[in-house]
Amino acid sequence: MEPTLRFNRNDLMDFVIRYMTKLGVPAEDAKIVGKVLICADIRGVESHGMQRLGSYYGSRISKGWLDPKTPYKLVNESSSTALIDGGNGLGQVTSHKAMRIAIEKAKKSGISAVTVRNSNHYGIAGYYAMMALEEGMIGLSLTNSQPLVAPTYGRTAVVGTNPIALAAPSGAHYPYLLDMATSAVAYGKIQIYEKKHEHIPIGWGIDEDGQATNDPAKIKPGGHGALLPLGGMEITAGYKGYGLALLVEVLCSILSGGSFLTNVGGPGRPEPTGVSHFFMAINIESFRPVFDFKESMDAMIDLLKKSPLAVGRDEIMVAGEKEFEYAKYNQEHGVPLIKPIVEDLRKDGEKVGVPFDCHVLRED
Amino acid sequence: MEPTLRFNRNDLMDFVIRYMTKLGVPAEDAKIVGKVLICADIRGVESHGMQRLGSYYGSRISKGWLDPKTPYKLVNESSSTALIDGGNGLGQVTSHKAMRIAIEKAKKSGISAVTVRNSNHYGIAGYYAMMALEEGMIGLSLTNSQPLVAPTYGRTAVVGTNPIALAAPSGAHYPYLLDMATSAVAYGKIQIYEKKHEHIPIGWGIDEDGQATNDPAKIKPGGHGALLPLGGMEITAGYKGYGLALLVEVLCSILSGGSFLTNVGGPGRPEPTGVSHFFMAINIESFRPVFDFKESMDAMIDLLKKSPLAVGRDEIMVAGEKEFEYAKYNQEHGVPLIKPIVEDLRKDGEKVGVPFDCHVLRED
Repeated sequence: MEPTLRFNRNDLMDFVIRYMTKLGVPAEDAKIVGKVLICADIRGVESHGMQRLGSYYGSRISKGWLDPKTPYKLVNESSSTALIDGGNGLGQVTSHKAMRIAIEKAKKSGISAVTVRNSNHYGIAGYYAMMALEEGMIGLSLTNSQPLVAPTYGRTAVVGTNPIALAAPSGAHYPYLLDMATSAVAYGKIQIYEKKHEHIPIGWGIDEDGQATNDPAKIKPGGHGALLPLGGMEITAGYKGYGLALLVEVLCSILSGGSFLTNVGGPGRPEPTGVSHFFMAINIESFRPVFDFKESMDAMIDLLKKSPLAVGRDEIMVAGEKEFEYAKYNQEHGVPLIKPIVEDLRKDGEKVGVPFDCHVLRED
Repeated sequence: MEPTLRFNRNDLMDFVIRYMTKLGVPAEDAKIVGKVLICADIRGVESHGMQRLGSYYGSRISKGWLDPKTPYKLVNESSSTALIDGGNGLGQVTSHKAMRIAIEKAKKSGISAVTVRNSNHYGIAGYYAMMALEEGMIGLSLTNSQPLVAPTYGRTAVVGTNPIALAAPSGAHYPYLLDMATSAVAYGKIQIYEKKHEHIPIGWGIDEDGQATNDPAKIKPGGHGALLPLGGMEITAGYKGYGLALLVEVLCSILSGGSFLTNVGGPGRPEPTGVSHFFMAINIESFRPVFDFKESMDAMIDLLKKSPLAVGRDEIMVAGEKEFEYAKYNQEHGVPLIKPIVEDLRKDGEKVGVPFDCHVLRED
């Protein structure tokens, strides 16, 4: 196990701002990027956290592949909808703005949707869904992404991992926050098994012939093989996960006029990635008092938690709960970053002349 | 294999209307029920078709458990939202009205949502989603249902199969229509394996201890064991399917103030089932011209269909396609009903003095 270093949230934020502004990103925008990245690390989604600062964002800006000014444009709007062109800028900045617009519109009309095209990777989908919580709203956040998943009966990566995030407030319990890729698992999980020389379960991915495999080395999306959609192979209803991935595609790229499927790029190529997003806010008060809604949420969660446990298990959880627990701990003890990520941040900083000088609170 | 009898669509509709009106259902409402049921049989979803006319609807009305007049009430509304109380009437009737309201509101504001509480089983979720297609809109239809599915780490049926249906229009291709339960499979599928004395794949259901099982006899939701959510056990990401089932629950019952989880009833008990629904319509023209949207849909579907096939497979399909193909055939050759269902319809008819005298077009 790599040692984990813990940092003060504000120190990390300060570094992100200095790093990003050095690259030409306005300070206000840099702060949004920092918030989204650090939120991921705090919640235990390190794959989408600080480790991507350089690889996904900084390096693209340095090379002129991503516009640091994020010149998004409102293409059109109605009382409950808006379409935004992200101007090949920072996905977090345009998405933050898009969700704010969605929330403001929902205050008046009860529900709203904002689509974004020509954007870039926006970090964890759940961040934007959670923005609705403080407003007594339900938030939905969807994005397409570079192809990693095979359609049912296909054998190559054609579809993105296209995540779905929905947040809903509760009272005594943590909010409900579903934040899931529509693939069975993340590619990173398969790579970990490969490093450990362990078999993976059937249902995670396919080999170059499109057959189920338990060998992680046979799954290299973009090269050979692909991830499977949620549900796995056809017999275990993988076509449902594939169908959900297309639901995300329809609402993000088809509705916004953006790029889709294999036309969506990854961070390593010069062309605009062309990522599209979809945001929705539902004003609970338009339906029933938020207080009553939260009471029902608590009652539902209680019912789940009191229901009989499988032998050998000690708790039934609700989507997001584990991450909220983890975040609570990390907010007290510092943002955890494993050593290799800290080393990458040092290198990222050196490249642009912004030293990573955050003080280590603790090493675990 | 049971022989399949084929009937004229209008003959079946005529029978449903005579049967339902005899039970006190207004003719206009009976026609809606007929449309939804026959649509299911035409699309090959026989589990949700004519076979439920008596068992789910007629018998409940006869016993006074379901109000044949469907006295739904608009509880409140805003420019883009509405909340309806279904008055323990026919789910199809209230849902048809709810989706019409959603469509009318979306024409003005671009997007709308309508929730329904205190309703009953509404048939196939996809029917209401598809209502949006003719209007150049995207339609979403969700419903909760009686508990059949275990939450991750649970061992009893606490959650409904809570389906998600989304319809989006395309040009040359069939529309995209996702219509999926958030369980891995339907209970009916497991029962078929039990009748055939065959093993089921791991990932469909759990036994009374909450352990994965390949024995269909060990899965009797409500008695012992339960269906698994989409994704199966935890290792293959069943918590995602469980999370999606709760997404449906939040938008249907929590947002409408309806019954949830184990408080939702099945058709066999006298209490109101308390089923809740959620409908949404998105007016594509608010974002971009429908013509352009359809062109993008076609391009997306073409890209999927042209992508490399798994060895041994001959076609990549898109959600709904198989059912549209099947419906096309059945519209020409007659609505297919297997003999036991026809016999049940005869008995249902006899009970209320409405003979099932539909002419058999063909026997397969």
